[in-house]
Amino acid sequence: MEKLGAGNKKIKQILSWQRSVKDRREAGVFIVEGTKMYKEAPSDWIKEVYLTQKVLDELGEPQHTCYLVEDSVFEKISDTQTPQGVLTVLKRPEYSVKDIINDARNGSPLILLLENLQDPGNLGTILRVGEAAGVTGIIMTKGTVDIFNPKVVRSTMGSIYRMPFAYTDNICETIKELKNAGVTTYAAHLHGSEVYTEYDYSKPTAFMIGNEGNGLTDTATEMADKRLLIPMEGSVESLNAGIATAVLIYEAHRQRA
Amino acid sequence: MEKLGAGNKKIKQILSWQRSVKDRREAGVFIVEGTKMYKEAPSDWIKEVYLTQKVLDELGEPQHTCYLVEDSVFEKISDTQTPQGVLTVLKRPEYSVKDIINDARNGSPLILLLENLQDPGNLGTILRVGEAAGVTGIIMTKGTVDIFNPKVVRSTMGSIYRMPFAYTDNICETIKELKNAGVTTYAAHLHGSEVYTEYDYSKPTAFMIGNEGNGLTDTATEMADKRLLIPMEGSVESLNAGIATAVLIYEAHRQRA
Repeated sequence: MEKLGAGNKKIKQILSWQRSVKDRREAGVFIVEGTKMYKEAPSDWIKEVYLTQKVLDELGEPQHTCYLVEDSVFEKISDTQTPQGVLTVLKRPEYSVKDIINDARNGSPLILLLENLQDPGNLGTILRVGEAAGVTGIIMTKGTVDIFNPKVVRSTMGSIYRMPFAYTDNICETIKELKNAGVTTYAAHLHGSEVYTEYDYSKPTAFMIGNEGNGLTDTATEMADKRLLIPMEGSVESLNAGIATAVLIYEAHRQRA
Repeated sequence: MEKLGAGNKKIKQILSWQRSVKDRREAGVFIVEGTKMYKEAPSDWIKEVYLTQKVLDELGEPQHTCYLVEDSVFEKISDTQTPQGVLTVLKRPEYSVKDIINDARNGSPLILLLENLQDPGNLGTILRVGEAAGVTGIIMTKGTVDIFNPKVVRSTMGSIYRMPFAYTDNICETIKELKNAGVTTYAAHLHGSEVYTEYDYSKPTAFMIGNEGNGLTDTATEMADKRLLIPMEGSVESLNAGIATAVLIYEAHRQRA
């Protein structure tokens, strides 16, 4: 196995992929860190594995192309504060908006349509709780944080391997496609007209969730079939986007059980 | 109004309160930052306000003891990456476990019992969503992160002013007190016996939520009246503590509506 020093061009490439949305997009890759994420990775997605000696001793030599790196070099390429000593470069999965809309696994699609979400932790959490609640796919506007951002990937806790997702250039077009496919679109809105528990989500459903600070745009809200309200007691002005999503999709899960 | 330089002992004291749990506990204070948190603060909790000239011009002179600080000094005392130029020192509210258990606002208490939660963002989020869902009080074990930690306070978005909370030395004793007061205790557990939607939360209810990595201790779980399960599809192993709490308390809110 090849041992790479800090100046090696492969190490420099990892650094650029960790930092730059554009570089990793052009290469068609994303990076995951840690033993759990390495072990759960679909085998045919794995391109390269970077390991410290300690992890190599523990895990044995991977069946994929792999490189040994010094602890000090690993600390440089790792995006985490406490590097676990294994970093995997993966080929990106490719799903289309059409696939997600037409995918009727479980009989009835349960889709999330995210508009301009900015917080990596929120997006990762939404993938994780989405998988748990039976969401069948996630569609995001181009203004949403990059799903392959290291912080997003980390906070999915592996759901990025299993949840279909796609970016859309045009949210209005996507809402139309959803309607044409018989999927009802629900805008989560602070001025929603009905409490969210009043609707029937056992039928094909898409929840639209807006940006953390501004919520959904007026354009998107107006195109939705329904506006729903999550009631809030006390003086709370809004809920965190991940929390609001969890409340909605677990209500759908309850109705579908 | 007094203008304070970087070396002033008041500035040094703020720094120690920002950093040290013990120092702020001994002084009986906590610190909030930003205009929203200043404006929402109960007037009789406010001890001192620290402002930059810019914020003083915008807000006018507070009716409380206040100090002017240079922008560069403010950056030092602020715990945030983009300081808003106003920092408020507040007297701590005091609630007892007994008050929370016996407080039957809304007719029927809805209590959270948190065991050893470590993540400041989680605790803050739980206060915020707790207020929104009608939680009447939060009891935490001593091993839980300090609720007056600047990150917790920030992520409550003001709910720290309105949500009663108390720390308990002995979770077993607290569970007994809850039972004696007629409150049913539900342990959120990966090996729960019933799906959470099967129970009636319109009656006095306490949800027990465990540590992010380890969940509830066996001791606490065994003392609970019921173990509930949040069902998870796919390969998800657990939910974030804040997310799990939100799902449970909004189910209680749905039943109570």
